[in-house]
Amino acid sequence: MHFTQNDLKNLDRVKKLNFINSITGIKPANLIGTISSNQETNLAIFSSVMHLGSDPALLGFVLRPAQDVPRHTFENIMENGFYTINHVRTSFIEKAHYTSTKFKKEESEFEKCKLTEEYLSDFIAPFVKESTLKLGMKFVESVPIKLNNTLLIIGEIMHLILPDNAIDNKGYIDLGLLNNVGISGLNSYYKLEKITDFPFARPNEFPNFSE
Amino acid sequence: MHFTQNDLKNLDRVKKLNFINSITGIKPANLIGTISSNQETNLAIFSSVMHLGSDPALLGFVLRPAQDVPRHTFENIMENGFYTINHVRTSFIEKAHYTSTKFKKEESEFEKCKLTEEYLSDFIAPFVKESTLKLGMKFVESVPIKLNNTLLIIGEIMHLILPDNAIDNKGYIDLGLLNNVGISGLNSYYKLEKITDFPFARPNEFPNFSE
Repeated sequence: MHFTQNDLKNLDRVKKLNFINSITGIKPANLIGTISSNQETNLAIFSSVMHLGSDPALLGFVLRPAQDVPRHTFENIMENGFYTINHVRTSFIEKAHYTSTKFKKEESEFEKCKLTEEYLSDFIAPFVKESTLKLGMKFVESVPIKLNNTLLIIGEIMHLILPDNAIDNKGYIDLGLLNNVGISGLNSYYKLEKITDFPFARPNEFPNFSE
Repeated sequence: MHFTQNDLKNLDRVKKLNFINSITGIKPANLIGTISSNQETNLAIFSSVMHLGSDPALLGFVLRPAQDVPRHTFENIMENGFYTINHVRTSFIEKAHYTSTKFKKEESEFEKCKLTEEYLSDFIAPFVKESTLKLGMKFVESVPIKLNNTLLIIGEIMHLILPDNAIDNKGYIDLGLLNNVGISGLNSYYKLEKITDFPFARPNEFPNFSE
């Protein structure tokens, strides 16, 4: 099956949205937790969290346009500069998915979706108790992507919380053992199973591939 | 286990690199194919391919700094404006991983890693024959992320090739059936298995969650 640029333009709107959103492959499933200056908490699922740098530890995520619809996550981060990133696990994917329902600002997705707020003593933004891998983030910069009017929100990791046995002595994590999930498109959730680790690729240790 | 910003800074360099690179969750595994004006092909694995827009169909990926090491992918895209994105499947993950070996510009990773170049008649950049989901991309814009000196490379989908049975009538793809893989960190590869699809979240169809 071969779609050209024009074929894609002419697809039915909903089919196009599902299709093009899933065409990059698997994406991480994360819940971003924030709080407004009025102490209203917010929780929203994002599939665009990405690694940008390790020292300092910088992560980014992409926000859709703020003009047309309210964006509580963005507003809250701008108000106080902090947010949390919480990995979604198989045990609460449905609750996580439905944080994407449009609620009013005074309604908290924590309460609506029956997920539990958790706090560190010196950190304002709410974590998700049900998540086992959680990051406390400090907003650093937003980079406009003018072409389609989105923002890349960049933050630095201030706190990183995970189970004692989740990281090995090389720094590797097994996302399968943690029951973490992946997303494809907007609506499909995947289980993860580690196949293998390869060493860092060095010219003098290059394998002998057969054709 | 709780790491603060300072704990992360003080980690051993390699452990920090592995750890922070895997902390966002699962990432897509894609091979980016390019060709230089001297007809030298290049193939490189990327875990940063992301969706940016559906109409026009825009995808991005993040490139590390070009100053310190040669970046053939970037040079080739700048030379002729086109590239391919090819999903990695379980059958060739080792070959895909070792495209990250440092080769000279006149050496092609296609040849070194025993992956097969494939061309469309009207498109200059090489596809990976062994991949079943392939995208022909036209470079649109590069957005500098000054904070850590990387570039977000944005392109539009000109060609999209996938198996006849890979997309359903709603536009959903099953990445598990396609044997596509995910990456965690720099070196770990995962099998994907679809758990479920949820509908688009609407307030009037909100599920009744128990605590």
